[in-house]
Amino acid sequence: MDSKKANRRKFLRNTALAGLAGSAVDATAQTPGMPEKKIDELIAYGERSHFVTSVRVPVAERHSPDEFGLTFHVLTPLQDSSGIITPSSLFYTATHRGSYVPDIDPKEHRLLIHGMVDRPLIFTMDELKRLPYVSRIHFIECLGNRARPTHKTVQETHGLTSCAEWTGVPLPLLLKEAGVQKGASWIVAEGAEEVKGASSIPLAKALDDCVVCYAMNGEPLRPQQGFPLRLMVPGFEGIYQIKYLRRIKVVDRYYMTYDDYGHINPDPKVAALTHEIGPKSVITFPSAGQKLSGAGFYEISGLAWSGAGAIRRVEVSTDGGRSWKTADLRSPALPMAHTRFGLNWNWDGKECTLMSRCTDELGTVQPTRAEVAKYWNQTPDSNFRVPGADNSVQPWRVAADGSVHNGLA
Amino acid sequence: MDSKKANRRKFLRNTALAGLAGSAVDATAQTPGMPEKKIDELIAYGERSHFVTSVRVPVAERHSPDEFGLTFHVLTPLQDSSGIITPSSLFYTATHRGSYVPDIDPKEHRLLIHGMVDRPLIFTMDELKRLPYVSRIHFIECLGNRARPTHKTVQETHGLTSCAEWTGVPLPLLLKEAGVQKGASWIVAEGAEEVKGASSIPLAKALDDCVVCYAMNGEPLRPQQGFPLRLMVPGFEGIYQIKYLRRIKVVDRYYMTYDDYGHINPDPKVAALTHEIGPKSVITFPSAGQKLSGAGFYEISGLAWSGAGAIRRVEVSTDGGRSWKTADLRSPALPMAHTRFGLNWNWDGKECTLMSRCTDELGTVQPTRAEVAKYWNQTPDSNFRVPGADNSVQPWRVAADGSVHNGLA
Repeated sequence: MDSKKANRRKFLRNTALAGLAGSAVDATAQTPGMPEKKIDELIAYGERSHFVTSVRVPVAERHSPDEFGLTFHVLTPLQDSSGIITPSSLFYTATHRGSYVPDIDPKEHRLLIHGMVDRPLIFTMDELKRLPYVSRIHFIECLGNRARPTHKTVQETHGLTSCAEWTGVPLPLLLKEAGVQKGASWIVAEGAEEVKGASSIPLAKALDDCVVCYAMNGEPLRPQQGFPLRLMVPGFEGIYQIKYLRRIKVVDRYYMTYDDYGHINPDPKVAALTHEIGPKSVITFPSAGQKLSGAGFYEISGLAWSGAGAIRRVEVSTDGGRSWKTADLRSPALPMAHTRFGLNWNWDGKECTLMSRCTDELGTVQPTRAEVAKYWNQTPDSNFRVPGADNSVQPWRVAADGSVHNGLA
Repeated sequence: MDSKKANRRKFLRNTALAGLAGSAVDATAQTPGMPEKKIDELIAYGERSHFVTSVRVPVAERHSPDEFGLTFHVLTPLQDSSGIITPSSLFYTATHRGSYVPDIDPKEHRLLIHGMVDRPLIFTMDELKRLPYVSRIHFIECLGNRARPTHKTVQETHGLTSCAEWTGVPLPLLLKEAGVQKGASWIVAEGAEEVKGASSIPLAKALDDCVVCYAMNGEPLRPQQGFPLRLMVPGFEGIYQIKYLRRIKVVDRYYMTYDDYGHINPDPKVAALTHEIGPKSVITFPSAGQKLSGAGFYEISGLAWSGAGAIRRVEVSTDGGRSWKTADLRSPALPMAHTRFGLNWNWDGKECTLMSRCTDELGTVQPTRAEVAKYWNQTPDSNFRVPGADNSVQPWRVAADGSVHNGLA
């Protein structure tokens, strides 16, 4: 019996539920044709069908620089995704600190707000939950989310983005309560892991729409997403969304932190990290590794998102970018959230290349791979690496046999 | 090792992931201070913290009329909820058919559309997934979701409602493809359980916004929510949302079905079921069974929803209904979806009664318990039972010691 199950059993035994659960067990045993089921699954906490086997996979080429030498970037299976919510169990996770997940007792956890403030504050989790809160649907994407010619699936090319509903206390409310002093211009947010992952964030962003979150998708944060507290910095790259948040220091300049790993660069454009993500989109069906069962009608489906706000438009090309059709938005188009698009497509059975590109509410259009490479002075056809985000258009090549391949290969 | 875990292990062994997962196992073992974790949890499918123990509980007084005599209505822990999404594992489930959950192989499942149509159609799951789809956030509530004086928590009074993101094919598209014949006025939707749970639904609703869903919260439907296919009938009571959907027959009149249990009534107002839910709201914090830690500032938090559309306004009373303040909407207010509200409250430490009432986009206001009782010619102070929905205002009584109690008791 695994520890989770043992915990549930113990919980049921030790509470007033025990009697009810017991009677349900007896009743279940009498049901004709009833498959053998764990009663805690039927009642306490449901599980997915054993026919559903979609899982996250680790990034193959991601090497951590720290002493542990661990690869621990784990990719969301976007090829199996529906809608805009990523199930918490399948939410991507990325860390430069190996696979260590702190086992934090929320009763012991504290959040400290200090530095250039009139009233330093410290909060317990219970105290934070007594404050006004917001619930918002936002994506998080790792800056390292980029396609390589070697990638065989959309999970590999784009699986470092996920989207969830986040609930917590607006950071502007906490900062107002603490009283930000004149001259302050940045905050440093720090987590409780052993290496104290931290990021410097412009004060203007902290006072705009950041949220100190204790819940995702309707339940407390998952351990891999920062239980019990995570800073949500909507639209900014994943490394800002500090997990295990324990400290926010208000300061008067950009501070170098452990999280600057990989971002340190003499170019002033990238010295203070790269901030906003996107606009970006990708077709999740049909995508590399999938196969069409012959000519005929298909629904091209995908996700679009932008760190600058809501998605206004998605276009799809089925001829390698020569012509574009406007796709339908098939979900609410919320600010800094995954947005689902779809387009009816009648495949003629001939080889072709599929692409999507999006436009956000500022009117910014997702760039081509050639444009991103040119901006960073790289050769687009190689396995180029840019120091910023790569939000370029992803091509999928459909072969005449219906098999779908990475168009970068 | 439970079967789910065995399945995952098998999956990992049998795929190209085996090598990656293997190397990660080795790496994990080397991490200093790394708690013992199952590698499938760290990578494949994350789980919640062992500090989070919120679970569903069965309805105590709900007795099924069928031969199995099983109680199987399982309540969502609303007292622990955040935001508007209910985690799929904690989504309420209700059935008149005991705890039997069909174990359906999606490859074998079919959807038949027939009756008064020009072209009867049958779909595999793969065929359905090739069609245009929508993703929408909607609640489902059981008509039996009603407070009794004996209930000790909001889970007991209101736990038969939940909210998720649903993805699937619009039913109007399927019916248009089949060609609805002149004179048709209803559909009968039927599930694949052994008793073939079915409901009659007005054709006008079927042609409006119904969706044949294969996914919830970003992954395939959970078995308890109808895997692999469920009919979403937005805003209508739960019994219409046919699980394990296998057949839709277009007909020219209302058909009595197994699901009419409990609804059969000589009153023409309720003969064809009661259709739309709400407007309804409930305070989830502070709610019965919770305790305030003394006078001071608290955030009153709750959920509002309506089968008629979006929530426009929620009001909260802290003096038993004598005066009302407009609460803030703290989440997107989407049509036929849970909507989160909040209100800052400074408790003076004296006994008081908290209430919420909502108004939907049609301007309909949630009724008091007295109004609902009067409508159905019942005495409001008793444990009254009405043949339709009870969407009345729920009072919570806060005692001077901070303990919170069901105001109906």
